[in-house]
Amino acid sequence: MLAMDIPALERFLAEEFPQANALGFSLLALEQGSITLGLTASDSHLRPGGTVSGPTLMGLADAATYLLILANIGPKALAVTTHLSMHFMRKPDPGTLRCVARLMKLGSRLAVAEVHIHGGDASAPFAHATVTYSIPPR
Amino acid sequence: MLAMDIPALERFLAEEFPQANALGFSLLALEQGSITLGLTASDSHLRPGGTVSGPTLMGLADAATYLLILANIGPKALAVTTHLSMHFMRKPDPGTLRCVARLMKLGSRLAVAEVHIHGGDASAPFAHATVTYSIPPR
Amino acid sequence: MLAMDIPALERFLAEEFPQANALGFSLLALEQGSITLGLTASDSHLRPGGTVSGPTLMGLADAATYLLILANIGPKALAVTTHLSMHFMRKPDPGTLRCVARLMKLGSRLAVAEVHIHGGDASAPFAHATVTYSIPPR
Amino acid sequence: MLAMDIPALERFLAEEFPQANALGFSLLALEQGSITLGLTASDSHLRPGGTVSGPTLMGLADAATYLLILANIGPKALAVTTHLSMHFMRKPDPGTLRCVARLMKLGSRLAVAEVHIHGGDASAPFAHATVTYSIPPR
Repeated sequence: MLAMDIPALERFLAEEFPQANALGFSLLALEQGSITLGLTASDSHLRPGGTVSGPTLMGLADAATYLLILANIGPKALAVTTHLSMHFMRKPDPGTLRCVARLMKLGSRLAVAEVHIHGGDASAPFAHATVTYSIPPR
Repeated sequence: MLAMDIPALERFLAEEFPQANALGFSLLALEQGSITLGLTASDSHLRPGGTVSGPTLMGLADAATYLLILANIGPKALAVTTHLSMHFMRKPDPGTLRCVARLMKLGSRLAVAEVHIHGGDASAPFAHATVTYSIPPR
Repeated sequence: MLAMDIPALERFLAEEFPQANALGFSLLALEQGSITLGLTASDSHLRPGGTVSGPTLMGLADAATYLLILANIGPKALAVTTHLSMHFMRKPDPGTLRCVARLMKLGSRLAVAEVHIHGGDASAPFAHATVTYSIPPR
Repeated sequence: MLAMDIPALERFLAEEFPQANALGFSLLALEQGSITLGLTASDSHLRPGGTVSGPTLMGLADAATYLLILANIGPKALAVTTHLSMHFMRKPDPGTLRCVARLMKLGSRLAVAEVHIHGGDASAPFAHATVTYSIPPR
């Protein structure tokens, strides 16, 4: 029932979003309503004190939502972010982050996802986001 | 491990927040990290078209978060809402709403919860909120 | 250039939203890009401690945005709130509140406003909101 | 009345946040309650289609708020972002962006700013953010 699977999303990213490689995440899991990205934080993501920067976390949440929408509606759609709200609750340690986005609404005009970013051990989240995309007319 | 159970929260509400009765919710379940409220929407909650009003949904999410914090830290604390963000995703039908708040962070100064409001059948949520409280020094 | 002026908005409210009267605001000023509502807080808006309730402030911000959109696009449109985010920064004193909404975007599908709620003396705001409406196809 | 002026903020950034140079903004103006940053978007900020990336805009809003708080309370404080919400309303053209942050609250524990990001001509904003920082005990 998905319009794109993980290999199709990876090809799309490599062709259309070479900058996404700079963020350096990998696609770990994909279902109809959710996607999981992994990110091993490297020096370019870090702030003083060794924590992962806010823009890295926000970019990760945005990318997860975008890929989950594409997986559902296919690569032709030019969806754009209209709103992103993130709570930063704990300092993420350097190491592997897990970012899980879940679709709460996929309408003909708007999609809304919630995103949790955890450390490797899936304890309480470092950050939580809601992300809204506008879906263009087909 | 909870500082207050459901009967203690109900007594606190009746004594300190008689206005909460106007909202008309009931406490259905309480655990360390989550609380469930039920609301049977009556005429006073409705907007034209028979849908539940936004302020009713926002007030319900705020109350659920407040009670969950009190259940954890006790009735003496004077916690105040500093931020509430709500996505309205589907029109809630008249009938019983279930509102589930989950604590994502309970720090010494800030608490953050996420809240899902569903219809009776626990399908996709009508509304999603994040709610932040400031916890006063003890 | 406005589709509706203040008397037209007042007639629309009286006919279509009798519940809005319960909130009890008045329309003080209207321009192309902004609207000002006044609210004299009465007992029904108050929480213990004499402060105005969060749902009252959120309902006021939502109503201001709705009326500003209607003033621009006319009464036929069935616009619905998709997101409201409010920061509560100071306790509003009982007395007259001034609520100013400004349109930041009025697109064919989405409208976004920012809202400041002040006391009578226009000092630092008690509360700040952003409100997003979905505009139906015409 | 400011604890730090523009040259002091620039020295602080160069010493403590060498990564901020990667973002590439300049400090254009500073008053008690507001700060203006300029950013000439270069290739590293761009997404396909030539628009400035969301993480660049969010990083810029966060940096503006951080510097405005430091200007008011001095460089010793270890303030951390607890929440950032951004509306993306128009595609920013490549070229110079102006980012204006205004303090709405500077309390002993929390600071809240609103941020508008415009093009060079100060027309309707491309993006609007609210940013919350937690201020550590002194």
